[in-house]
Amino acid sequence: MAATNTVTGEMVVITERVEFSSAGNCDITNITAELRRLATEHNLKAGTMTVFAPGATGAITTLEFEPGVVQDFKRLFDQIAPADQPYEHNVTLGDGNGHSHVRAGLLGPSLVVPIEDGVPLLGRWQEICFVCLDARPRERTVIVQFMGVK
Amino acid sequence: MAATNTVTGEMVVITERVEFSSAGNCDITNITAELRRLATEHNLKAGTMTVFAPGATGAITTLEFEPGVVQDFKRLFDQIAPADQPYEHNVTLGDGNGHSHVRAGLLGPSLVVPIEDGVPLLGRWQEICFVCLDARPRERTVIVQFMGVK
Amino acid sequence: MAATNTVTGEMVVITERVEFSSAGNCDITNITAELRRLATEHNLKAGTMTVFAPGATGAITTLEFEPGVVQDFKRLFDQIAPADQPYEHNVTLGDGNGHSHVRAGLLGPSLVVPIEDGVPLLGRWQEICFVCLDARPRERTVIVQFMGVK
Repeated sequence: MAATNTVTGEMVVITERVEFSSAGNCDITNITAELRRLATEHNLKAGTMTVFAPGATGAITTLEFEPGVVQDFKRLFDQIAPADQPYEHNVTLGDGNGHSHVRAGLLGPSLVVPIEDGVPLLGRWQEICFVCLDARPRERTVIVQFMGVK
Repeated sequence: MAATNTVTGEMVVITERVEFSSAGNCDITNITAELRRLATEHNLKAGTMTVFAPGATGAITTLEFEPGVVQDFKRLFDQIAPADQPYEHNVTLGDGNGHSHVRAGLLGPSLVVPIEDGVPLLGRWQEICFVCLDARPRERTVIVQFMGVK
Repeated sequence: MAATNTVTGEMVVITERVEFSSAGNCDITNITAELRRLATEHNLKAGTMTVFAPGATGAITTLEFEPGVVQDFKRLFDQIAPADQPYEHNVTLGDGNGHSHVRAGLLGPSLVVPIEDGVPLLGRWQEICFVCLDARPRERTVIVQFMGVK
C-alpha cells in the first residue's frame, strides 16, 4: 500500500460553474479539460472536487471518452429505458421526455473526485462527462465545488 | 462562466438523521423539504450536503417528483431487474428480496449536493429522493451531513 | 429525529490507496474491512470517507456481500449490457471490452460515506464493494480520502 498523505489547515471551499450547450438524446459532453484547468488554478494540496448536475434530465459520470464508447453508452439507455415505450410522465405533462427522467435518476447527478496537489486522481483514460438525457438541446450549467486545504 | 466564489475558515461538520417510513417495492420518499429546512438552519456559507442511505436495500437519487415519474421509475426497475425471476440470494436466504439488493447496488446509496449561502444548488424541478427497494415496508433513517464553512 | 451532532475545527484531509487484484467479468471485491481499519486509524470526530475508483472499467457501490447477491449482481449486468452483443468500442479499439465501459459508466466510480467518531455510518449488512467490470484480471488501486475534523 502507498504512503498515507495527511494535510491539515484552514478549510477552503471554491464554487464554480461550467456552462455549455448540450444536444439532448444522450449527448455526452466531456468537461474534463475545463475541470482540470480549474483544479490547477485552485491548486488544493488535498481535498475533493464535487461535480453536480442541477436539473432533472442531466447526469454526471466518468467514461473513456472515445466515439465508440459514446455511441455504446447512448445505446445502453435506448435498451434499458427506450424512448418509444409509454411513460406516465408523458400523460401527466406534455413534454414527451418521460424516458429522460428515469434515465437521469438512474445515472445520478453527483460525482466526487479526490484531489492531491491540484490534480484530480482520475485514471488514465477516465474522463468526466455530463450526460444530457433530455429529449431536446439545452443550455447547461454544471456546479464544480473544490473543498480542501491549500 | 459565472464568478468564482471562494470561502475560507474553520471547518464545520454537522451530522443529522432524517427518519421516516417507506412502503417497499420502489416506494419513493421525497425528502427535499426536510433537507432544505436543515440546510437553512445550518446555513453554510459554502460546502456540501452528503445524503447517505445506510442499508443494503435503499438508495438515494434525484428525480422530478411528480406521480408520472414516480410510476415510470418503479417500472424501470421492474424491467431491468424483475422481482419474478430467480435470484441466488433467495436460495441462500429466505427473505425473497434478491431483486431489492441488485437494484439498490445499481442505484447507489450516496449523493453529494453543493451548498451556497445555506441553499442546496438543485435544479428547479430536481428533488432528492430516497428509493425503498426492499420487498416490504421499513422504518428508514437517512444520514445528512453538512460540511463546509459558516 | 436524532440529535444534531456539530463538530468544528481545523480541517484534516487524509488520502490513502488500497491495492488488490481483481478477476474481471464483474468480480466484486469487498474492501470494507480495510476501509473500516483506516477509518479507525484516522479517527475523524466527524467527516466523510470518499471512495473512488480511478479507471474506466471499475466502479464502487455498496451491497450485502453474500455469494447469492454477488452472483445476482453479475447477472444483472449480463442482462442489461450483455458482453456478446456488438459494441462500437470493439470496432474502434481491439480490446473487446465495450460492455465493460458502459457498465462502469452506469454504476459510477465514486461513493461518499459519512463518518462519526471514526466509524463509517454503514447499515448492518451494507458492504463497500469494488466492482471490476473489465473483461480480464487487473491490478487495482482504490483511492480513499478522509476529510473532516479530528
